[in-house]
Amino acid sequence: MNFPSKLIEDAVTEISRLPGIGKKTALRLALHLLKQNGAVTEALALALTRMREEINYCKTCHNISDHEECSICQSHRRDRSLVCVVEDIRDVLAIENTNQYQGLYHVLGGVISPIQGIGPEELKIESLLSRITEGEIREVILALSATMEGDTTSFYLSKRLKDSKVKVSTIARGIPVGGELEFTDEVTLGRSILTRINYSQD
Amino acid sequence: MNFPSKLIEDAVTEISRLPGIGKKTALRLALHLLKQNGAVTEALALALTRMREEINYCKTCHNISDHEECSICQSHRRDRSLVCVVEDIRDVLAIENTNQYQGLYHVLGGVISPIQGIGPEELKIESLLSRITEGEIREVILALSATMEGDTTSFYLSKRLKDSKVKVSTIARGIPVGGELEFTDEVTLGRSILTRINYSQD
Repeated sequence: MNFPSKLIEDAVTEISRLPGIGKKTALRLALHLLKQNGAVTEALALALTRMREEINYCKTCHNISDHEECSICQSHRRDRSLVCVVEDIRDVLAIENTNQYQGLYHVLGGVISPIQGIGPEELKIESLLSRITEGEIREVILALSATMEGDTTSFYLSKRLKDSKVKVSTIARGIPVGGELEFTDEVTLGRSILTRINYSQD
Repeated sequence: MNFPSKLIEDAVTEISRLPGIGKKTALRLALHLLKQNGAVTEALALALTRMREEINYCKTCHNISDHEECSICQSHRRDRSLVCVVEDIRDVLAIENTNQYQGLYHVLGGVISPIQGIGPEELKIESLLSRITEGEIREVILALSATMEGDTTSFYLSKRLKDSKVKVSTIARGIPVGGELEFTDEVTLGRSILTRINYSQD
């Protein structure tokens, strides 16, 4: 595209650096901002700059937080013997939205991915191990994506945690609630049979 | 969503004001910026602010421009007797990309839309009429969207231009090149028959 203005070209270039946003969408967004009051663009630019510069991470679980320790780690209502290991803050929000979990979290900040050059040392694994040595934690729940990278990270973590006395579990993989057997892929269906749950369990 | 940080909440709120971006996408974009170097966010914020504050519009055709008059209006290679009336700069870029048009443009800045409260006085219509009175223009091509609003605007403009001596035309509506008759909607197909082009035309 040949833009008639360097200013709009720069804006489109910067916006289209964002994931999932191409040049056409970037131009649509830029033109939208031009049609709005200048205060809208100002508020957006300020919010982005402030977020990037002033953001804090919880010193315990590495979740995003405005304070030194996040509200979940500070809460007295939480079960401090449970730690759920997740990839990033989006997973924390997703699990919190279920209202099914009352333990703490540990945000790794990614998963092991040799292709993207992310090794175990890039992730917050050492601080997880040192949290465990404090003795309060009884169970570590691995809640990573069911992808190659997620599984690799789960495997690595379970190996590192083998010598500690904590129980290590992983979230169940199976057919989604509301999902039909017929349309479930073979691997998921096969796994759901292998890891079946005993109804007559006492 | 309950965000653990006011900073990220503000950023997500501002990003999700953009058209077509919901809270989930906004959060994904914000987290992406947090993972990148701070310079990426800084460049984005600066490009947006500069664009909004310093942008200029061509005094003749109202296209976006860094100068008082845009490069198309200044060009000596352009046919100054032709003016193509479009809604916004995106349409200028789209028509320029076809390499089929060598005339000038006139950017209305929108179309008449009573629902959105946009009347003819919000658009650059008076300046189009005064361009025409200068006498150099022989034909005005209406290249507006084939929507209710676009058609209303075309109708309004053709009425306003009736008394002037310029020829008023509109871009052809018909089946798209590469489109199959079978899958073309009835209205388009009907119109393409009514406005058929005579092959034996001399």
